[in-house]
Amino acid sequence: MNFTVIEAVGKKVKILDQTKLPAELVYNNYDDFRDIITSIKRLEIRGAPALGIAGAYALAVACEAEVDVDFEHFKKLIPDIANEIKNARPTAVNLGWGVDCALRAAYDSKAENIEQFQKILWDEALAILNEDKILCDKIGVNGEKFLKDGDTILTHCNAGALATGGSGTALSPIYAAKKVGKNIKVFADETRPLLQGARLTTWELMQEGIDVTLICDNMAGVVMRQGKIDCVIVGTDRVAKNGDVANKIGTYTVAVLAKEHNIPFYVALPYSTFCQDIERGEDIPIEERAPEEITNWGGVQTAPEGVKVYSPAFDITPAELVTAYITDKGVTPGKRK
Amino acid sequence: MNFTVIEAVGKKVKILDQTKLPAELVYNNYDDFRDIITSIKRLEIRGAPALGIAGAYALAVACEAEVDVDFEHFKKLIPDIANEIKNARPTAVNLGWGVDCALRAAYDSKAENIEQFQKILWDEALAILNEDKILCDKIGVNGEKFLKDGDTILTHCNAGALATGGSGTALSPIYAAKKVGKNIKVFADETRPLLQGARLTTWELMQEGIDVTLICDNMAGVVMRQGKIDCVIVGTDRVAKNGDVANKIGTYTVAVLAKEHNIPFYVALPYSTFCQDIERGEDIPIEERAPEEITNWGGVQTAPEGVKVYSPAFDITPAELVTAYITDKGVTPGKRK
Repeated sequence: MNFTVIEAVGKKVKILDQTKLPAELVYNNYDDFRDIITSIKRLEIRGAPALGIAGAYALAVACEAEVDVDFEHFKKLIPDIANEIKNARPTAVNLGWGVDCALRAAYDSKAENIEQFQKILWDEALAILNEDKILCDKIGVNGEKFLKDGDTILTHCNAGALATGGSGTALSPIYAAKKVGKNIKVFADETRPLLQGARLTTWELMQEGIDVTLICDNMAGVVMRQGKIDCVIVGTDRVAKNGDVANKIGTYTVAVLAKEHNIPFYVALPYSTFCQDIERGEDIPIEERAPEEITNWGGVQTAPEGVKVYSPAFDITPAELVTAYITDKGVTPGKRK
Repeated sequence: MNFTVIEAVGKKVKILDQTKLPAELVYNNYDDFRDIITSIKRLEIRGAPALGIAGAYALAVACEAEVDVDFEHFKKLIPDIANEIKNARPTAVNLGWGVDCALRAAYDSKAENIEQFQKILWDEALAILNEDKILCDKIGVNGEKFLKDGDTILTHCNAGALATGGSGTALSPIYAAKKVGKNIKVFADETRPLLQGARLTTWELMQEGIDVTLICDNMAGVVMRQGKIDCVIVGTDRVAKNGDVANKIGTYTVAVLAKEHNIPFYVALPYSTFCQDIERGEDIPIEERAPEEITNWGGVQTAPEGVKVYSPAFDITPAELVTAYITDKGVTPGKRK
């Protein structure tokens, strides 16, 4: 990629500040883990895979500061630090997962002193980052086969490189297709209320030299009817056992439109996102966002004071609307006829 | 209605400044027709029927200023003034229609002096306003029959009282249903890019005591799937001879979703909006809006510099997706099976 979401630079962690996109490209270098926590809270870095990596690096940075103690005492300090990091975004499962991975690697190691323990944490964070890169690339290779030279893809929200340590999930097949010489164009839904499509997806595709056109969410229907779209690829937060897909609000509408226009609808995801403990989409709780995200923009009031707002954070696309699931371990057909 | 879009107050014209909504309720009183032209250009007043009324009133105001000439000279001044008003928004057909109506009434009259001519212009403007009120109410009465007590209606954009001299087109059946004691709720799409739903539809429904909930355009699918919506009512800019409907961008997507969920999809319109000179929807040219409406909001840049944008101002809903057309002259069935 022509940009880096997160990486270690010496004993510092360099994070691309996504809150500044698309107006400015700003990298922050952190050597205090509490600044990384703030960075996570402020959404400078977001996206499940990227947060896993950030969690591991935050732990590595935190342990660099704890040097004026003996090794046994040092090890006792770690759990509290780990919890503090995990609590930066308590509902972001991958953040805790990244912290726990790094922690387990260090505790399970034969580290005999602080220096060795610290080194294992840095190594493990890098390993998580590199594994994610490989995983993204595998999704790309598996998805690229569905894209023909000259195709135009519609995507919703941002399931791209900016959400991962690698080339993304939904956008990875597009990058992979470009790599093998296919000319691919993209239409990006702006994705209200938080505009991840407008702010992030268009930005990263432009960085990579992919021809991208921004539309409002309510224009997806007309571009499909005009024959502009060859397939849809989206990411997902989780997939229930029956294949129902939870993803950013608006995904379901796009899936209905894709079926109506006989356009394939693909969901790209790490194989691990297939949920083993939730049977069906309707069992997934749908969290609601704050009304202000819709009633205010850039300090301007866009709806009457006190208006009722319904703002589900995501929706459920039934398996019957999915053509196929593209994962790092291969492609699973959906139930769409 | 609990507010007035446009009316004469003495020899002045009072216009509700819709650019200040929903934050402030401001009425401007104009006694210079050039200020009314500016008001039209600034979209203080908008909507086809309301612009027709504004055009007629602007002409009446203009002619009040021309008193230091003889009657023959006076009549020669009028065509240029009329053109200046029409050019405030050259593509708004109704604006020109309103000006021409008033002009014809005055020229065809037996006015023998400036005072009589002026009076006819004021009377004709009022007649246009009153006719529009009656027309809106007829749409309401004809549409109200489709609404059951307790129903929830989804609407897109603003085809309400704020766009007319009366109770609106798409929203008129809702007001009529309330009048006969039915309890009706509404979900309003915010309607990107210009947010007419968020800014105007919610505001006017709240003024009238109707229970309204604001959603982003991309949430229409999920609320339908959740069983929250009993029918959809939208307005239209024009209907082709074959029944295809041109309306605000996003209407087509709502129509596809309504069909998928087996929810009736109604189009409310003055009977005169049925086009006799355009055969099919695909013959209606689709104008594109400025990219900045999508890439900037409240002075905040929301998309990368130089990003490509596709922003059609409206879309075409084929007659096959329309359950019925609700007009002042009765109800015409659509082609949806």
